[in-house]
Amino acid sequence: MSVESWIQENRASLLAELMEFLRIPSVSAQPAHRSDLLRAAEWLRGQLVRLGFSVELIGQPPVVYASYTGRPGAPTVLFYGHYDVQPPEPLELWTAPPFEPHLTSEAVYARGACDDKGQVFAHLAAWQYLREQQGQLPFSLRVVIEGEEETGSESLYALLQKGGDAWRSDVVVVSDTAFFAEGIPTLTVGLRGLLYTEITVRGPVRDLHSGSLGGIVENPALALAHILSALKGPDGRVRVPGFYDRVRPPHPAERQAWQHLPAHEAHYKALTGAPALAGEVGFRPIECISIRPTLDVNGMYSGYTGPGAKTIIPAEATAKVSMRLVPDQDPEAIWAAFAQFVQEVAPPGVEVSVRKLHDPAPAFETPIDSPYYRAAERAVAQAFGKTPVPLREGGSIPVLNALRQATGGAPVILMGFGLPTDAVHSPNEHFKLSQLWGGIAAAAYWYREVAQLAPNG
Amino acid sequence: MSVESWIQENRASLLAELMEFLRIPSVSAQPAHRSDLLRAAEWLRGQLVRLGFSVELIGQPPVVYASYTGRPGAPTVLFYGHYDVQPPEPLELWTAPPFEPHLTSEAVYARGACDDKGQVFAHLAAWQYLREQQGQLPFSLRVVIEGEEETGSESLYALLQKGGDAWRSDVVVVSDTAFFAEGIPTLTVGLRGLLYTEITVRGPVRDLHSGSLGGIVENPALALAHILSALKGPDGRVRVPGFYDRVRPPHPAERQAWQHLPAHEAHYKALTGAPALAGEVGFRPIECISIRPTLDVNGMYSGYTGPGAKTIIPAEATAKVSMRLVPDQDPEAIWAAFAQFVQEVAPPGVEVSVRKLHDPAPAFETPIDSPYYRAAERAVAQAFGKTPVPLREGGSIPVLNALRQATGGAPVILMGFGLPTDAVHSPNEHFKLSQLWGGIAAAAYWYREVAQLAPNG
Repeated sequence: MSVESWIQENRASLLAELMEFLRIPSVSAQPAHRSDLLRAAEWLRGQLVRLGFSVELIGQPPVVYASYTGRPGAPTVLFYGHYDVQPPEPLELWTAPPFEPHLTSEAVYARGACDDKGQVFAHLAAWQYLREQQGQLPFSLRVVIEGEEETGSESLYALLQKGGDAWRSDVVVVSDTAFFAEGIPTLTVGLRGLLYTEITVRGPVRDLHSGSLGGIVENPALALAHILSALKGPDGRVRVPGFYDRVRPPHPAERQAWQHLPAHEAHYKALTGAPALAGEVGFRPIECISIRPTLDVNGMYSGYTGPGAKTIIPAEATAKVSMRLVPDQDPEAIWAAFAQFVQEVAPPGVEVSVRKLHDPAPAFETPIDSPYYRAAERAVAQAFGKTPVPLREGGSIPVLNALRQATGGAPVILMGFGLPTDAVHSPNEHFKLSQLWGGIAAAAYWYREVAQLAPNG
Repeated sequence: MSVESWIQENRASLLAELMEFLRIPSVSAQPAHRSDLLRAAEWLRGQLVRLGFSVELIGQPPVVYASYTGRPGAPTVLFYGHYDVQPPEPLELWTAPPFEPHLTSEAVYARGACDDKGQVFAHLAAWQYLREQQGQLPFSLRVVIEGEEETGSESLYALLQKGGDAWRSDVVVVSDTAFFAEGIPTLTVGLRGLLYTEITVRGPVRDLHSGSLGGIVENPALALAHILSALKGPDGRVRVPGFYDRVRPPHPAERQAWQHLPAHEAHYKALTGAPALAGEVGFRPIECISIRPTLDVNGMYSGYTGPGAKTIIPAEATAKVSMRLVPDQDPEAIWAAFAQFVQEVAPPGVEVSVRKLHDPAPAFETPIDSPYYRAAERAVAQAFGKTPVPLREGGSIPVLNALRQATGGAPVILMGFGLPTDAVHSPNEHFKLSQLWGGIAAAAYWYREVAQLAPNG
């Protein structure tokens, strides 16, 4: 049976299973959801055991590690994905509750629908299809699905550091990226790195009456504003000394590829809904979100934020500040320069501390000349009717460098099925059903072709 | 019986009554506490009825208006106070819950203990003492205790605008201010005005993935930081054009009075617990908190502020920004200049709106040459053993100008019994018992002397 017919036949049960997965609020950033992470891992264990894998849950929150020994002489594939999701806040902006999946004729809405549960599920479905068709998987498979992708991958890093044969593979496949747009299939060939920090400014020992004592102390919120304001200029350039020193210029081939994309201002305005685009002076939007590094404030808090007025000078102010890094920026060097710069621009009268919220990750690149990549090109073309374009993407999967190293340097295929309109990390995240079905088909085509390749390329 | 002996005898019951009042969480800024405001007003009604007042509750939250007709030919005093309190947040910094009053041998701890329930209570006790001693109050009294002092006095403004005989008085007395320090009794002769605003910055239509789309939109939190940073320079001066144009220089007599106070840096460092003092270049701390205007960020919020990392570009950022105004700044002119300046310094790529959270109030001054003021000097000296110093204070009681006008221009006596260490508007607010007992005595002495004065000074 063709994969398309199989999907058609199993549509209802596939959706029911995916929605079961989406119903688990596995938010890794929030300690209150610790047991939900375990539930999500257990759910995956159940699925994988049914498919004939031997499964281990390792660490806390657990890394789901599963292995399947297929036909001897076929390559060993390592599939990587994650079952944790971003915090759903702000809840009031969701049309339906984030963990009560909502199905329309077009898409499934839920936190994690696209990032990454829906995409992980596409592979689960592909493996199920292949097993049903062929009795067994015609290749060996290691499955690694972690619960801390959104918060630093601590458990997985610890496992990878131990190394060992459990990680040796011929190719890594990941579906946690997106097409350039609907109808423009894309294979991701690079990701930005990530340095995520938190700045805390402390002033008076407690919140002060802003009347009685207003005028004699530095206001921590204002001090934080001065610091943040100093980080990026009106030209959109990050002011941390040395930030751009090692940034690699775009490759001419890349510049040329962009010519063929509808990467107009209007495309990005529609994606963001911003009143106007902004960005680094001298670079086009597609460059700003892929080959250029950037800095963003992800959250900021100080004093009284409830309704109405409270007349205080806050004792403290904090901001979460992250940077996306590109080749060949060194995350540790950037971190050191950033931490020093923050202290330098801090006004007197406050104490400022900066910390990393997780280990910084460098940018990631993957070659486009391996037979596994070419197989992915054909698989995506067959499933979506068009040859995919190779593009860098602005997001990060920090653990990929370490993962690749643990496999012995296997090529990494970033075959993602998301769309930039999926509201990933935002309220009303969703996954288009056409992308889900196409994703299952593409994965099945890819695994089938990979099974025919000789190991190690 | 002397007021001191009477206090000694009734100590336990007085404290029990005050704690009953403090137990009501009458937070005016928070809609959830609407019914608590009513409970506090009803509690006051009960007290006043027992003292022989005729009482009305007017508006929502109610203004408690009570009147008592005393000896004909004696002056009519208008007492003003408020029963609403500041929000208690951040709750985790309170040693005991803010609305479960905690009594030590030194002080009573609770939100509102000093501001203003404890000080209102000092007058209730003084009236009780005078009635018990003399069978009736030897003067006429109008009592106005509102529930919106911390949020703009809307109901009271509405009542005052109607005007009428109900407001006509010979003198206004208020206890909502503080001594310079313990052992340095103070009568307040000026208050700063208040302009309280909220700035909202809107960027992308929803929170965006900071990787996929980071680099092409202005970050609203960063835009807000740029705006806030532009409001005040490193010299501590507010950058809003014209802000200082009408600021009156200090009076030589005032400068001289300051010489006699221990208004050292160390005094203010101890009060604030800040790593170092800051403030407007060229002015001493006592000037910065009394005769100079200032600007503070009272609260700030954007994006994700929970634990851990969330990689978003927030759709929105807001800040509460307030200014304390001095004679002869015009609040409406400052508001217009502020609102325009915020728009001017806003970076492109975001939409910025500014609104007032309540009607701005000008600074307030009161004469020190009335017989009522001299009576207050003697009353405070008798109760606290030292002649009080006349000082301006940095806080605001916005409604006082309108109140004075409604009385027909009566002098306003700001006879407050707080201490600057009371943590007013902060966690662990408290009221020293020695100040409470002294306050009751001072109020009793003052009313007794006022009863002997001829109406209208």
